[in-house]
Amino acid sequence: MVSKENFKFEELEVEEINENQMLLKNLYFGFDPTQRGWLNDVKSYMPPVQIGEVMRSSTISQVIESNIPDFKEGDIVQGSFGWQEFAITDGKAGGVINTSKIPSTITPTASLSVYGITGLTAYFGLLDVGGPKEGDTVVVSGAAGATGSIAGQIAKIKGCRVIGIAGGTKKCNWLTEEANFDAAIDYKSANLGQTLRELCPNGIDVVFDNVGGEFLDVALTLINMNARIVLCGAISTYNNEKPSPGPSNYMSLVIMRARMEGFIVLDYLDRFPEAIKSLSKWVEEGKITYLEDIQEGIENAPDTLVRLFTGQNFGKQLLKIAEAD
Amino acid sequence: MVSKENFKFEELEVEEINENQMLLKNLYFGFDPTQRGWLNDVKSYMPPVQIGEVMRSSTISQVIESNIPDFKEGDIVQGSFGWQEFAITDGKAGGVINTSKIPSTITPTASLSVYGITGLTAYFGLLDVGGPKEGDTVVVSGAAGATGSIAGQIAKIKGCRVIGIAGGTKKCNWLTEEANFDAAIDYKSANLGQTLRELCPNGIDVVFDNVGGEFLDVALTLINMNARIVLCGAISTYNNEKPSPGPSNYMSLVIMRARMEGFIVLDYLDRFPEAIKSLSKWVEEGKITYLEDIQEGIENAPDTLVRLFTGQNFGKQLLKIAEAD
Repeated sequence: MVSKENFKFEELEVEEINENQMLLKNLYFGFDPTQRGWLNDVKSYMPPVQIGEVMRSSTISQVIESNIPDFKEGDIVQGSFGWQEFAITDGKAGGVINTSKIPSTITPTASLSVYGITGLTAYFGLLDVGGPKEGDTVVVSGAAGATGSIAGQIAKIKGCRVIGIAGGTKKCNWLTEEANFDAAIDYKSANLGQTLRELCPNGIDVVFDNVGGEFLDVALTLINMNARIVLCGAISTYNNEKPSPGPSNYMSLVIMRARMEGFIVLDYLDRFPEAIKSLSKWVEEGKITYLEDIQEGIENAPDTLVRLFTGQNFGKQLLKIAEAD
Repeated sequence: MVSKENFKFEELEVEEINENQMLLKNLYFGFDPTQRGWLNDVKSYMPPVQIGEVMRSSTISQVIESNIPDFKEGDIVQGSFGWQEFAITDGKAGGVINTSKIPSTITPTASLSVYGITGLTAYFGLLDVGGPKEGDTVVVSGAAGATGSIAGQIAKIKGCRVIGIAGGTKKCNWLTEEANFDAAIDYKSANLGQTLRELCPNGIDVVFDNVGGEFLDVALTLINMNARIVLCGAISTYNNEKPSPGPSNYMSLVIMRARMEGFIVLDYLDRFPEAIKSLSKWVEEGKITYLEDIQEGIENAPDTLVRLFTGQNFGKQLLKIAEAD
């Protein structure tokens, strides 16, 4: 399990910016399960964070000083400037997301939650990889998380029956009372296999999996013909020292002519505007609700990351570093 | 492991046929790994064979007596009449494949091998599910088997680089010398992971998996972006008493935006003629070669089934029951 012992705080002077740069003050860090993978020295969709480097993360920042025509003092921007109080950048793409001004029409934190990587992951994963059809039964794991909750609500908008798996009564109640899910299963208290079977009498058409482990194996036993299993993550396994066993029931994919497919949201960069437009519309219409879990203080960054893996966070995990001027 | 203790020989009188029936004498039984699954009492793409029923299998038979206008005495037909010397049928569809006359232009046994379910499985699995493109690296497990060998040769026809995994020098030599594979790995003597890595310096684009187990897990570590893993079977696990662990490295599907997909050849029934036409052309042009492993004697049916799971068979496993008149 990642812990604060894996990180070190260092104080350095803020350098002068040159003629093509700007100085940013970070206001918020965004937290995502995928950050755990960046700490492993393995080939992945991005290089690992090296020992001694600033921990990579999405950020919301304010421009303090700028020599770049497109950015002026006071602008609020999103980017990927990592766990530090200040950052100097040329404002070009880099890291997880492009550096861009956050429009004044949206709450800055929403640019990291519903309109950020987590919301966009839900959008493309569910719609493009999952291909939900009206009347389908959709099951979402990690359903109260920043991605799962949006994925489930989009499935409802598309006319599906949606069942969410989450940990604890509070999260499960939120899913059915606020987020429009048809049912929720508390994996901490329910018999997952039995309850899921009861709640899916007609089988499962789309599995949106953020969790892996036992959930995926159980879901595989209930899939329908031509089911789609969207592999979004496997948070239950990210901190394991040894490779976790894979889904034992994967041969259900043969019997049911089904597919299990992974994706990386960064492949959809050119369609982000389309997705943000749809998500904004649904938020305005009250069809999508979202939660943000905002901790405070840069010294709490490592502990805030851990919250993702212990299920403590409720909604998009953010950490507030500073107030905007 | 299935064994002859699971079967019982019974002698019964052959009954009279009625006005819509014909009497067949079985000449050959066809053997397929999927028969093992039919012996488990689980929900699958076909109901299990019940205790006391004739063991289901594909067959080549000769018409002995017929009251059906479309079939006359002496015709050679393929069907699914199971492990018995004689069968009475109305000649309509049933079981694994439709009852149909074998054209005089093809060797009868070829109707169960290259033009049978195994060849058709290779055709649709590779082309429809695998989607090979010119220049792709394709890896086939169970490559000397009746399906794998055809799948690999079709991939070669499509301009791919093809590596086969098989057990023993004899099978591996056949793959590279007769079946046009670019390379073969003897899983009994080679370090599978290391050798596969060396033979696939540019990664793997299509995995055609008949075997499951260690092979699938290793292959997952070498897949390229947008790779396709065709799940055709998992013969290494069919006789296990406990569920086998799934592929531990399945999260490579996320990193590589790849998919793992199952299929059942019976879904392509209406396209069988197209496939048989293509396969015939390739056989005539010498682009596809195939082997048949023909054992003899109905009393050897159970042992012949076991040959599939011990890797003894070399080519399509058949059992000759009787001579045609």
